[in-house]
Amino acid sequence: MTRLPEPVSHGAGARDAGVHVSRRRLLGASTSAAVVAAAAGLAAGATGGAGPGQASPSAGPDAPIDFHGEHQAGIVTPAQDHLHFVALDVVTTDRAELAALLRTWTRAAERMTAGAEAAAGGLVGGGPHRPPEDTGEAYGLPASGLTITIGFGPLLFDDRFGLASRKPAALEELPPFAGDQLDSRRCGGDLCIQACANDPQVAVHAVRNLVRLGVGVVAVRWSQLGFGRTSSTSTSHTTPRNLFGFKDGTSNLQAEDPEALTRHVWVGRGDEAASGSWMVGGSYLVARRIRMHLEVWDRTSLQEQQEVIGRDKKEGAPLGRIREHDPPDFAAKGPDGDPVVPARSHVRLAHASRLGGIRLLRRGYTFTDGTDGVGHLDAGLFFLAFMRHPGRQFVPMQRALAGADLLNEYVEHTGSAVFACPPGTAPGRWWGEELFA
Amino acid sequence: MTRLPEPVSHGAGARDAGVHVSRRRLLGASTSAAVVAAAAGLAAGATGGAGPGQASPSAGPDAPIDFHGEHQAGIVTPAQDHLHFVALDVVTTDRAELAALLRTWTRAAERMTAGAEAAAGGLVGGGPHRPPEDTGEAYGLPASGLTITIGFGPLLFDDRFGLASRKPAALEELPPFAGDQLDSRRCGGDLCIQACANDPQVAVHAVRNLVRLGVGVVAVRWSQLGFGRTSSTSTSHTTPRNLFGFKDGTSNLQAEDPEALTRHVWVGRGDEAASGSWMVGGSYLVARRIRMHLEVWDRTSLQEQQEVIGRDKKEGAPLGRIREHDPPDFAAKGPDGDPVVPARSHVRLAHASRLGGIRLLRRGYTFTDGTDGVGHLDAGLFFLAFMRHPGRQFVPMQRALAGADLLNEYVEHTGSAVFACPPGTAPGRWWGEELFA
Repeated sequence: MTRLPEPVSHGAGARDAGVHVSRRRLLGASTSAAVVAAAAGLAAGATGGAGPGQASPSAGPDAPIDFHGEHQAGIVTPAQDHLHFVALDVVTTDRAELAALLRTWTRAAERMTAGAEAAAGGLVGGGPHRPPEDTGEAYGLPASGLTITIGFGPLLFDDRFGLASRKPAALEELPPFAGDQLDSRRCGGDLCIQACANDPQVAVHAVRNLVRLGVGVVAVRWSQLGFGRTSSTSTSHTTPRNLFGFKDGTSNLQAEDPEALTRHVWVGRGDEAASGSWMVGGSYLVARRIRMHLEVWDRTSLQEQQEVIGRDKKEGAPLGRIREHDPPDFAAKGPDGDPVVPARSHVRLAHASRLGGIRLLRRGYTFTDGTDGVGHLDAGLFFLAFMRHPGRQFVPMQRALAGADLLNEYVEHTGSAVFACPPGTAPGRWWGEELFA
Repeated sequence: MTRLPEPVSHGAGARDAGVHVSRRRLLGASTSAAVVAAAAGLAAGATGGAGPGQASPSAGPDAPIDFHGEHQAGIVTPAQDHLHFVALDVVTTDRAELAALLRTWTRAAERMTAGAEAAAGGLVGGGPHRPPEDTGEAYGLPASGLTITIGFGPLLFDDRFGLASRKPAALEELPPFAGDQLDSRRCGGDLCIQACANDPQVAVHAVRNLVRLGVGVVAVRWSQLGFGRTSSTSTSHTTPRNLFGFKDGTSNLQAEDPEALTRHVWVGRGDEAASGSWMVGGSYLVARRIRMHLEVWDRTSLQEQQEVIGRDKKEGAPLGRIREHDPPDFAAKGPDGDPVVPARSHVRLAHASRLGGIRLLRRGYTFTDGTDGVGHLDAGLFFLAFMRHPGRQFVPMQRALAGADLLNEYVEHTGSAVFACPPGTAPGRWWGEELFA
């Protein structure tokens, strides 16, 4: 009935584009300073030889991030502005169907992270009588730093898919912690997909299209959106503030410290007994949805807030010190003989020196999910952290915090999950290929 | 107990800053191209003499937008990337308390839109023994294009505050429409605050601090976050796509067309009978939360999608035409004798030419509120539109759509509200001052 308009050439149309052509090329000329700067950043990124999972330091927020590499992108990748995280259950019992989906997903992720559509047919290439192969809301948008990271939950290794013998000993369900207020509708999942991008529409598009490709094989269990530092307003030298108004992440692991990453984040050859050979180069992801009771916090005095956190609010320095990155002095005592950094402060309890050197790579996002029905913001931190062994890193740390942290009066853990994120892939390979071999 | 660290000078600290000093000054030197460009944009904006409610065309996404003017900012202001919208109920019956809050809010909005903290004490200036006057999560962030827009709901004009005689005849509750699936927890409100910014944390911070200033006077009824075009990826020449993958807003009113705004958006002197003198220079806001059933849509053929919308998916041209901005030809018929633009297509039913010239200024945002419990995204369009008279503009348009639009199979209106947004303010004046006079 309808006559479709003739195709109009854009130069390089996204549906014809190989995976290395960015959707950005579809954009016309612009006089916006920000866009020009971003395009300049993109060009720098394209020629600058960014490492796996990392944009070149000069790349703008629109630039693509290499999907392939020893490790998956989205782990040590500098945190993008926006997160869409989804946990899925496998609804088929056919191992081959699941493996085929992982292959399909890998191809789609390669395309989308490069700025192309989810499948070759794209927006309109499938013709008028079929649903479009890509849902289209990111058509015309650049790669926007998109990374897509996959993980496998403990229950994937039950008896459904013949994977029980490959289950990493390190991939145990997390134990209950004191004070947990977990909502089962925000917990667990056979699989997870973490999509991060500097444009929320690009992250949402990625998850939506992967979920769509999985219809009949997987179903969404829960999902979470988040936002973080924004690329337009942050520098690599500024620690962002959380919803309690404190700098958060000061002593986080740095992507620029490969020795620390090897020690705390990446599963190595020596971990095969706990993780299996297929996890070498991978990492474990712990996700916790932490509701923050902002209205209660906002009625708390500055001094109490600072004693709860163990840092001063303005600078972010450990109490008794001057600058944010000064190491805390846990031995220092005030005139009253009490420790300057209170015994149950968050900084003291979570500090590596108090936990036998335990560290994590934190990569969480702030969330605000509207209002909770009694007039309070349903907001907080969607805690995401990568590590070599959850039982030796997250679990002891959280036990120490759950039992004593002064912060517990103001936060509540409402969701929880753990996933094994396999290593990165090379062109032509696929996510979890070694697991299913 | 705790010894606070000595203050460290940042140059111009935010807590000492007047309202015209941006939080951006707190940021240190940066080598990021995007940040440098944004700072250049800010400088251009600061010296370029932007009009009320508008950034200078050369201003970057960090720049402040003038709070004062004939009209409130946030109406014809080019849409920022992020929205935090909140509807509130007044919980006091004391008219003076309500008026005092509106004064307090106006001062706080002046400060925050200029990039300063919500109150002069700010993050730490109130001393250790009081809760900080600003919640702090936007400390160090630039103004980020923040606009804050206030509106008054119909029930504010009941017998509580002696405002019944000032109620605009044009401010009627919206009638029920065919197909409405309204959730009362997402409807109505005595007041609304629309905060828009290019950084979600800045928008969330603004709403949170205004709500906090209103404790005991107002309580949150419902809230909605949204995202839209991103300043880093869009140009003023590109129409963004909605979650159905179609360009959305092609024939929207343009802020550059003052005659059209006078005719369709701003309450004028001639409207005093319907709106009262205190609304001259103001506008009415209709908010509708429109859930979009993405999974159903994604199973629909390209042809059917295009017939539902009445435009082609790739270009956004009206069916039978070539380019996005070509006017639709509603008389054209295909070889089968049917109209090329189907009779019940969205474009045809919503077109001004079919509605006696009715137009609205649409300023909606996409939302994704996680998952609905049965594996589907709870996502869609938070429709916001400004107009001179809802009963003569939104109501007849929505009646035409609700009865016939093919799109109704794929969308569901789950929230609804209408507000009277008063005119802008001058320095020293306050929101609604004429209403309470």
